[in-house]
Amino acid sequence: MPALPPGSTIGILGGGQLARMLSLAGARLGLRCHIFAPEHDCPAFQVSAAHIVAQYTDHSALLEFAAEVDAITFEFENVPVEAVAFLEKLKPVRPGSKALRVAQDRIQEKSLARELGALTAEFRSVTSLSELNHAVKAIGLPAVLKTTRLGYDGKGQAKIMEMSQLESAWAAMKNQPSILESFINFQREISVICARGEDGHFAAYEPVENLHRQHILHTSTVPAAINQALAIEAVFVAQRMAEALDYVGVMGVEFFVGDDVLCVNEIAPRVHNSGHWTIDACVVSQFEQHMRAVAGWPLGSTYRHSDVVMTNLLGDESSNWQVLAAQPDVAVHLYGKRESRAGRKMGHFNKIRPRQA
Amino acid sequence: MPALPPGSTIGILGGGQLARMLSLAGARLGLRCHIFAPEHDCPAFQVSAAHIVAQYTDHSALLEFAAEVDAITFEFENVPVEAVAFLEKLKPVRPGSKALRVAQDRIQEKSLARELGALTAEFRSVTSLSELNHAVKAIGLPAVLKTTRLGYDGKGQAKIMEMSQLESAWAAMKNQPSILESFINFQREISVICARGEDGHFAAYEPVENLHRQHILHTSTVPAAINQALAIEAVFVAQRMAEALDYVGVMGVEFFVGDDVLCVNEIAPRVHNSGHWTIDACVVSQFEQHMRAVAGWPLGSTYRHSDVVMTNLLGDESSNWQVLAAQPDVAVHLYGKRESRAGRKMGHFNKIRPRQA
Repeated sequence: MPALPPGSTIGILGGGQLARMLSLAGARLGLRCHIFAPEHDCPAFQVSAAHIVAQYTDHSALLEFAAEVDAITFEFENVPVEAVAFLEKLKPVRPGSKALRVAQDRIQEKSLARELGALTAEFRSVTSLSELNHAVKAIGLPAVLKTTRLGYDGKGQAKIMEMSQLESAWAAMKNQPSILESFINFQREISVICARGEDGHFAAYEPVENLHRQHILHTSTVPAAINQALAIEAVFVAQRMAEALDYVGVMGVEFFVGDDVLCVNEIAPRVHNSGHWTIDACVVSQFEQHMRAVAGWPLGSTYRHSDVVMTNLLGDESSNWQVLAAQPDVAVHLYGKRESRAGRKMGHFNKIRPRQA
Repeated sequence: MPALPPGSTIGILGGGQLARMLSLAGARLGLRCHIFAPEHDCPAFQVSAAHIVAQYTDHSALLEFAAEVDAITFEFENVPVEAVAFLEKLKPVRPGSKALRVAQDRIQEKSLARELGALTAEFRSVTSLSELNHAVKAIGLPAVLKTTRLGYDGKGQAKIMEMSQLESAWAAMKNQPSILESFINFQREISVICARGEDGHFAAYEPVENLHRQHILHTSTVPAAINQALAIEAVFVAQRMAEALDYVGVMGVEFFVGDDVLCVNEIAPRVHNSGHWTIDACVVSQFEQHMRAVAGWPLGSTYRHSDVVMTNLLGDESSNWQVLAAQPDVAVHLYGKRESRAGRKMGHFNKIRPRQA
């Protein structure tokens, strides 16, 4: 497909803050955005040229949507593969259903990483309590039991420290196919936000160091406190995964780092919370990079002009906006969500410092 | 007025690229934008939560608009003062009609600058051919005849080199009240993009050097090649003018620079084309700064992290987008205008370099 010219319309499945920031970035490039989402009053609606409120299973709405756009992407990996496969027959969808399928399944994801020579935690597929018993004997404790699909921000997870916890852990999975992962005692977590163009070109931002609180990203810091060999290795792993998935767009790859060893944790087939720092520290943000890839444009520079710490604003933390806005060298980002709930991502802020090295 | 919280709606008169970039910046802060414009299919509509298409003289449309917003601003100085004065009775309008009145009138503008101790070109009010004759005798040739009101990008201007051109110059003014200005043989042109908050706080970006082609801005370069004393003087003049006008919002002040002397050329009571570099070279852009001031938020930092050259894309120059997008360290901005016409501002690009000093 030739590059879509300015004035083209990019369809986005999902209407949350990621879609909102994608729309804002698309607008810089003269691209219109059209949002498809099941919820009313989505953050992305406020900044997009058009939107449809419908279920992802509504084929006539999907047909109408496809007719009104030139290419399609999605803001999160929990959009049904069926919807993406349906749309793929009508318009280019980037990334496509292949990447989505793998990213939706923790077992496929880790298997791919291993096939490509990367390390991951030990893992076993678990579909019953007795399989869990066997899996624990094979990989030991402590371990983490997770649903294979549809988990994020720590949802659908149970840590197992001792054998007496097996039953309650399995009960928490609600009979869904699950994966038992050995617990990695890592020193830090990093991620690589990278992009692959339709032409196969690859570009990565430098690795970012992430700190979580209660399984939700709290801060992302760049540069990360890791040595250069690990940073380069992380980018290479991300590139191999993007190529294996015929990936087009921005992808996030999370790693655990311990004793000079990298373990792939998971991939996100989309723009990623740990890439929000790129908005204020880079010439081209992850959001613009993704829109470029989706529209078939050349990938942009990942040059970072500043050091930066990104901090998420969850729930009532965003009520602090006036104090944050008064701080020099802080860029505040708020997502236009009417209702604040505990743990809900309401915004983030980037604290910028002159680049040190 | 206390600061408007995130989720508030800012009304913008005008729907062009400045309103578009204001909307994009407002969205970062969680502010909704509502556009009022007489034209259909405005660039700002694509990125705003709501819009009304109506004439600025349509009082019932203005009433409806005022009811739907929490504060109001405008994207250009040629919006009728009557519309702003009407809206001011209903909702806060920033900047207000006082600043707008002065900025719309070249004679008031230059008179204010002189009252505040700044230099300007010599000037005379001209309302007839015989007055033009007297004015030319008083201030000499070459000189420039301009309509007092409603001129921009060189429209409504005639340069007078010799006495034989008086008649045609006056005819070009179409009997509108005009101003004759002595022609300043300047070395360079600079501008100061500054902001004043409702609380009286003032913040300026550093002066930018501007190059025009056929009376339309071609490039803006930061840092400007002027000495620091002049840079400081320019910022002080801008501050005195903002204070004298009880200004709230972002304002552009253009200066001619010659032999270590500054002459105020004109003020723009709005975000300004020569401030577009701030989007990619500063933590807080002129657009976000304006939205902060309009919403009563604290002004943001004007810290510049990079050196930058902004270049306008006029007419068909924007067809070059693919080449520009492929350049590292270039941020491309396109305005979503469907129709390209000669001289029409279609976009701009910022070429970013690491800050040298």
